[in-house]
Amino acid sequence: MSSKIISPELISRFAEIVGPANALTRAEDQAPYLREWRDRYTGKTPVVLRPGTTDEVSRILALANDEAVGVVPQGGNTGLVGGQIPSPEGNQIVLSLARLKKVRDIDAPGGTMIVEAGVTLAEAQAAAEGAGRLFPLSLASEGSAMIGGALATNAGGTAVLAYGNARNLALGLEAVLADGRVWHGLRRLKKDNTGYDLRDLLIGSEGTLGVITAASLKLFPIPAERETAIVALESPAAALRLFRIAEADAGSSLTAFELWAHRAQEFALRYMPNTRDPFIDAHPWYVLIELSHGGTGTQTANALESLLMVGHAQGLVRDAALARSLQQAQDFWRLRETFSEAQKGAGGSIKHDISVPIARIPEFLARAAEVVERIAPGARPVPFGHFGDGNLHYNVSQPEGADKAQFLSLWEPMSDAIFELVSELGGSISAEHGIGQMKRDALRLYKSPVELDMMRAIKQALDPKGILNPGKLL
Amino acid sequence: MSSKIISPELISRFAEIVGPANALTRAEDQAPYLREWRDRYTGKTPVVLRPGTTDEVSRILALANDEAVGVVPQGGNTGLVGGQIPSPEGNQIVLSLARLKKVRDIDAPGGTMIVEAGVTLAEAQAAAEGAGRLFPLSLASEGSAMIGGALATNAGGTAVLAYGNARNLALGLEAVLADGRVWHGLRRLKKDNTGYDLRDLLIGSEGTLGVITAASLKLFPIPAERETAIVALESPAAALRLFRIAEADAGSSLTAFELWAHRAQEFALRYMPNTRDPFIDAHPWYVLIELSHGGTGTQTANALESLLMVGHAQGLVRDAALARSLQQAQDFWRLRETFSEAQKGAGGSIKHDISVPIARIPEFLARAAEVVERIAPGARPVPFGHFGDGNLHYNVSQPEGADKAQFLSLWEPMSDAIFELVSELGGSISAEHGIGQMKRDALRLYKSPVELDMMRAIKQALDPKGILNPGKLL
Repeated sequence: MSSKIISPELISRFAEIVGPANALTRAEDQAPYLREWRDRYTGKTPVVLRPGTTDEVSRILALANDEAVGVVPQGGNTGLVGGQIPSPEGNQIVLSLARLKKVRDIDAPGGTMIVEAGVTLAEAQAAAEGAGRLFPLSLASEGSAMIGGALATNAGGTAVLAYGNARNLALGLEAVLADGRVWHGLRRLKKDNTGYDLRDLLIGSEGTLGVITAASLKLFPIPAERETAIVALESPAAALRLFRIAEADAGSSLTAFELWAHRAQEFALRYMPNTRDPFIDAHPWYVLIELSHGGTGTQTANALESLLMVGHAQGLVRDAALARSLQQAQDFWRLRETFSEAQKGAGGSIKHDISVPIARIPEFLARAAEVVERIAPGARPVPFGHFGDGNLHYNVSQPEGADKAQFLSLWEPMSDAIFELVSELGGSISAEHGIGQMKRDALRLYKSPVELDMMRAIKQALDPKGILNPGKLL
Repeated sequence: MSSKIISPELISRFAEIVGPANALTRAEDQAPYLREWRDRYTGKTPVVLRPGTTDEVSRILALANDEAVGVVPQGGNTGLVGGQIPSPEGNQIVLSLARLKKVRDIDAPGGTMIVEAGVTLAEAQAAAEGAGRLFPLSLASEGSAMIGGALATNAGGTAVLAYGNARNLALGLEAVLADGRVWHGLRRLKKDNTGYDLRDLLIGSEGTLGVITAASLKLFPIPAERETAIVALESPAAALRLFRIAEADAGSSLTAFELWAHRAQEFALRYMPNTRDPFIDAHPWYVLIELSHGGTGTQTANALESLLMVGHAQGLVRDAALARSLQQAQDFWRLRETFSEAQKGAGGSIKHDISVPIARIPEFLARAAEVVERIAPGARPVPFGHFGDGNLHYNVSQPEGADKAQFLSLWEPMSDAIFELVSELGGSISAEHGIGQMKRDALRLYKSPVELDMMRAIKQALDPKGILNPGKLL
């Protein structure tokens, strides 16, 4: 990619494709597309393009490829690693998929749905529910996050344990390639062994191999019954033992197993409205357990209660709160989902999205706390996350009363040390957020040269001019 | 790929890597590697190499790449589309992975296992069971089929409905690239969003992008309880309605839903030993339903019985036989698994492995029967397969008393017509067997030029000299 300036003449050629109302060139119109919500990444662009059809996306990319102009695809702008933000040089075009908002088709009995890239996760969930089905992809930003971005980054969330991440929920894709050609891969089949798995190659490639414009998605039966509890525990080791019991007892009914440290809950109760402590006493660790029963044939009342009795008999459960109503279950989930935002109240925060084999979570947490104390004495770890997937958001709040900027300047050394520990334990430096700009350097450190070479060869093959999301991932 | 002859000097350089005992050059030693079991594909080779380590595989490919010699990877030689058989020209080397037989590691609580490519599916199942876990990949040839081949072809089988196909059972791979470099990708993580999905790209690529030498596999809890029934039905439409009820009622407990026509069962009873009719009367169609209960928390006795009562009340069930013992359940499965082999007794057979959206199965079956009658009047369709996955083995036995060779000469026109129908219904011309040699021409007809170009670009990127399984898939 050259870093040449895009001429006004070229900008108007791009603008012609989408029409002037959808080619944003004024700073105030562009602003929402150029900064991510935590203000960690900001960029510049001559024009934000908002195509309304796949054909317009195709024509934009064909022109960009001819002119060797970098294009940054963007969905709901909720990514956490800067993948959706253009470079500060102002020589990349932002391609917003937000106007591709059609639910093209729902086949409720067949359990599939075709939606366009700009449909938000919440809208996709609602469309499925309207047809009596469940689209399970769920995460804190689901009101803004869009299907296209969720697939481009292989998003995770709270339902991964039962339903897998975004990758597992897509049967097929429609995508525009770097040269503007459209791959019509909107299959709706469970089994299709006809050639290379291009779908999974594009999913998680963060817009560097093609631009996803639509997807055929899997739908599931809406669980007839859900049981939710928050359990107070002594330690992550107790959580591990309880998880093993839940796995064995509940099998595929186990649809969530989320862990958090006391401090996460403390911050939530202090800084976030409408949160309540499920317990009278404080406890060191908590897990939220959810069981879902698919249908009339297998449902069992009180499966969760009997699971907790087993845990109690083994001395694992300090206390437990079972949701007695839908409202109470929603309160439990709300508490869990405010942790990240709640940290804002406690000053600066350094965040990590890591995974390790589940059995190593207790060791990781103990050693990560030592790492933090060594690099930023007094800093306050706020670990929480998807225990059942081995995925923790190992966030660290600044020491009480410390200088925020000074603390945040430790981001790199702290992340390096956490990533080193993760790597030693056989884990991943990005479990669900992806690489984007943030972890590009780390990727080069932690991936083998062979794997990086394979990735570069594929990038070169599918985007020879390097116009798709330059400077991200690879 | 040039079609030059491989010199004796080069053959001995290859032989040196594995030692003379594992470099087979005599016709009688090579024979088992050069023909597939149905005798549909036979090939020639100067040497069959049987490396014992990943390092030896690496050295073989490095040499082959330097000398631009084609290499045909082979596992248990059970593939059904000729992917594992070298060309008849005798200028390709056969690379048997059969000696890579180590189970490197089993982590029972973590639910993962690392095995080498040459471990058979039956051995992998046994290893998992020995550790108190389930490795669910199961198909008729599991005693010979090997993990490496199963992953290279993304094998399916009878447990796909509940556990997915081979792709869904692999967490990571170790593979040797065309130039001999080893990709160490044996991850054991459920979540890892760090770059392109190379694992899924190699899985299903039929040995054309790399040679899989080991895999880390997912293990599952052994179901505490299994219930199995064969249900007699009027029509595929009744099967569809019963399947929808089973899906809604049993949810994730539904672990098999297999359909077959009366003729499949008739042939099995006539030509295969140790098969028994579960019913007194004959019926037009049958399904085998299996429910598995994960653990003590959710199991329900007689869930299957109540499911069948619902089906009966809706007039869908003509008769039903519930397995009253493990032996009886095994008998039911044995009946189902003999269908393909049983057809040998009825003369020549033209076979298809197709999928369509489940809701279109009844239409497919009706129209496919018309296609058959038009192309080969009197020929006898023997449809059976994995109804719940939309995957049918649409096999056709010759007319009674007809000439076998003459009937088999209709393979191409019949397949063309069946594939056209499948394509019209939004289906796949290869649901689980892959492309290999057999469907290479059909692939070019039924894939879009864009998709074929993407595949070719990736092939060129990862195997620029085209040494890996030349003449297969693409």
